[in-house]
Amino acid sequence: MKELEIDRCRIVFSDTGFKALDDYLKEIAPSTSKTIILCDDITHELCLPRFTERLENLDPQYEIIEIPHGEENKNIETCTQIWEALSDIGADRHSLIINLGGGVICDMGGYAASCYMRGIRFINVPTTLLSQVDASVGGKTGVDLGVLKNIVGLFTLPEMVLVSGVFLSTLPESEILSGFAEMIKHGLIRSRSHWQELSSSSEFDIETLERVIYDSVHIKYDVVLEDPREKNIRKSLNFGHTIGHAIESFLMKTDRAISHGHAVAIGMVCECYLSGDECGLSGDFIVAFKEYIRGLYPVVDIKEEDIEPIIEIMSHDKKNSSRGINFSLLKDIGDVSINHYIEPEKIKEAILYYTRV
Amino acid sequence: MKELEIDRCRIVFSDTGFKALDDYLKEIAPSTSKTIILCDDITHELCLPRFTERLENLDPQYEIIEIPHGEENKNIETCTQIWEALSDIGADRHSLIINLGGGVICDMGGYAASCYMRGIRFINVPTTLLSQVDASVGGKTGVDLGVLKNIVGLFTLPEMVLVSGVFLSTLPESEILSGFAEMIKHGLIRSRSHWQELSSSSEFDIETLERVIYDSVHIKYDVVLEDPREKNIRKSLNFGHTIGHAIESFLMKTDRAISHGHAVAIGMVCECYLSGDECGLSGDFIVAFKEYIRGLYPVVDIKEEDIEPIIEIMSHDKKNSSRGINFSLLKDIGDVSINHYIEPEKIKEAILYYTRV
Repeated sequence: MKELEIDRCRIVFSDTGFKALDDYLKEIAPSTSKTIILCDDITHELCLPRFTERLENLDPQYEIIEIPHGEENKNIETCTQIWEALSDIGADRHSLIINLGGGVICDMGGYAASCYMRGIRFINVPTTLLSQVDASVGGKTGVDLGVLKNIVGLFTLPEMVLVSGVFLSTLPESEILSGFAEMIKHGLIRSRSHWQELSSSSEFDIETLERVIYDSVHIKYDVVLEDPREKNIRKSLNFGHTIGHAIESFLMKTDRAISHGHAVAIGMVCECYLSGDECGLSGDFIVAFKEYIRGLYPVVDIKEEDIEPIIEIMSHDKKNSSRGINFSLLKDIGDVSINHYIEPEKIKEAILYYTRV
Repeated sequence: MKELEIDRCRIVFSDTGFKALDDYLKEIAPSTSKTIILCDDITHELCLPRFTERLENLDPQYEIIEIPHGEENKNIETCTQIWEALSDIGADRHSLIINLGGGVICDMGGYAASCYMRGIRFINVPTTLLSQVDASVGGKTGVDLGVLKNIVGLFTLPEMVLVSGVFLSTLPESEILSGFAEMIKHGLIRSRSHWQELSSSSEFDIETLERVIYDSVHIKYDVVLEDPREKNIRKSLNFGHTIGHAIESFLMKTDRAISHGHAVAIGMVCECYLSGDECGLSGDFIVAFKEYIRGLYPVVDIKEEDIEPIIEIMSHDKKNSSRGINFSLLKDIGDVSINHYIEPEKIKEAILYYTRV
């Protein structure tokens, strides 16, 4: 699996990726004052040993900053604690931060590093399937502000991203499913064959899994390379996310919280429904896809009275300008179309479509 | 006064500057969803009317975000309030922020804009002499974390900076003196004639003042253009600041708080003392400069027991790596030398030098 490069950020994979990271650490050692590993309580216990034992050139004097796990900690308060910890440790402009964890760690750690002393170097080591196929490419970093996801953040790139299967066996089933939804999305917007490979099986051995992850990362890479600042085609990656994000944010405040990928899976069902009317996506596929998702992910009970506040959240999403709520929809499997503005009434219909058996 | 440009950021001056801003506002109106003016309670009352009455093309529907004035509000909590206010107003990626105020407003507003939705456009209108000659060029934005000044921030540039004398008559004497210290610094590090012009008079008419401000901004501009990321020569702008910043931070927590420029003026006296031993700066000048500063600025009572905590603050400053405390010193008037690492004992001596009559 060949390494990818975007704006001098290297994305490296599997065992050869560990070797590349190790070589890089050796190379920068003379210009590095301190190495700090940012992790959460879970990745500290389960991933840190697997990470360090594979590296010969990691500074043995590395410091650890640990934050509690969970999306609810991806906020400016936790980020401030990271900045304070960096200062207490004595991190300076020549320090290096290694973000070891899922999307929360990589997004928030990347933002923290990019703002600490106006920017220090960082490396991302995504340890969840979701962060490997999603946060690994694209330079989006940030934190949430209340219910507003990633409202504070930057486009900024790590020096290197290491994507390795060794961390995946630490994950519960629900976490694997969360990342799997993003992979499905990559297939649907850009590659029928990727979609077919993913949907034809529910079990992968580790070697196959590392390869399909590579394929999925490569799809996102191609899109981001074409449009790094989300001016046009990169918006296609929002497929499933406009409604998915809003459902995720809404349920987070209830006792029915679900994972990001689970919400995106539901969002994709709703947005396939919109794609039928708006872009001519086949009705048979829309029905089959709903059944596929309802079989793969636990069905979530979204009540009719939930829908108005869910649409309200969408209208605050930073992706939506004052012109209305913007969707990326499917013309066909592997063929996406951006910039569709849809009326709230129609969005309500799409969410109801998911809930109906 | 010709406009300056750096990395597509335009710096415009005086009446022609107002015209340039007005033309720019007209040009971007079709692509701008909302215009937000960030100000503090003082600039809201004193500067906003002078600003708006000179612009024909400012969106009359502009929104105002007002924060309380003062350096103590330049922190991540206030910045979070700005982000929340932007979201409440409905600011989106196509909005424009105009920062109308001193260094606190421009530094924090620039940081807030650059992180809101991963970056929206902003314009700086510095209204204090200090921010006109200092924050107007260079792209440094940020907020403080406790006593650590600008520890969180970015290098990021506004679309435009407007430097105009119309705001200066709103300022108290102490504010003028605060900015004047940075102008003195520009002379000392780079231009003997600028220093001579400044030190030969204590009163300027508005036209002369606008011209010497332009000269001073131009000196900083030349330095930043040569070294935007502070790898080498830009460090010369830190002359007076290593000790000055630390004194400012220390006194801020006491009942003896002083302005930034006042602290820099004291810092320059101390660092001239260091320049004597380290770089051969003339002893006569060192003595004369101390008298000049003690005549221009109220003498501050720094006690011997204050010095240790002041040096402690310096060692946390982001400009200092683990190699020690880094100074930019003078070989002669207008001739600076960077990267001098000085021992704490010697720094103590330099601070004591300021306090002795």
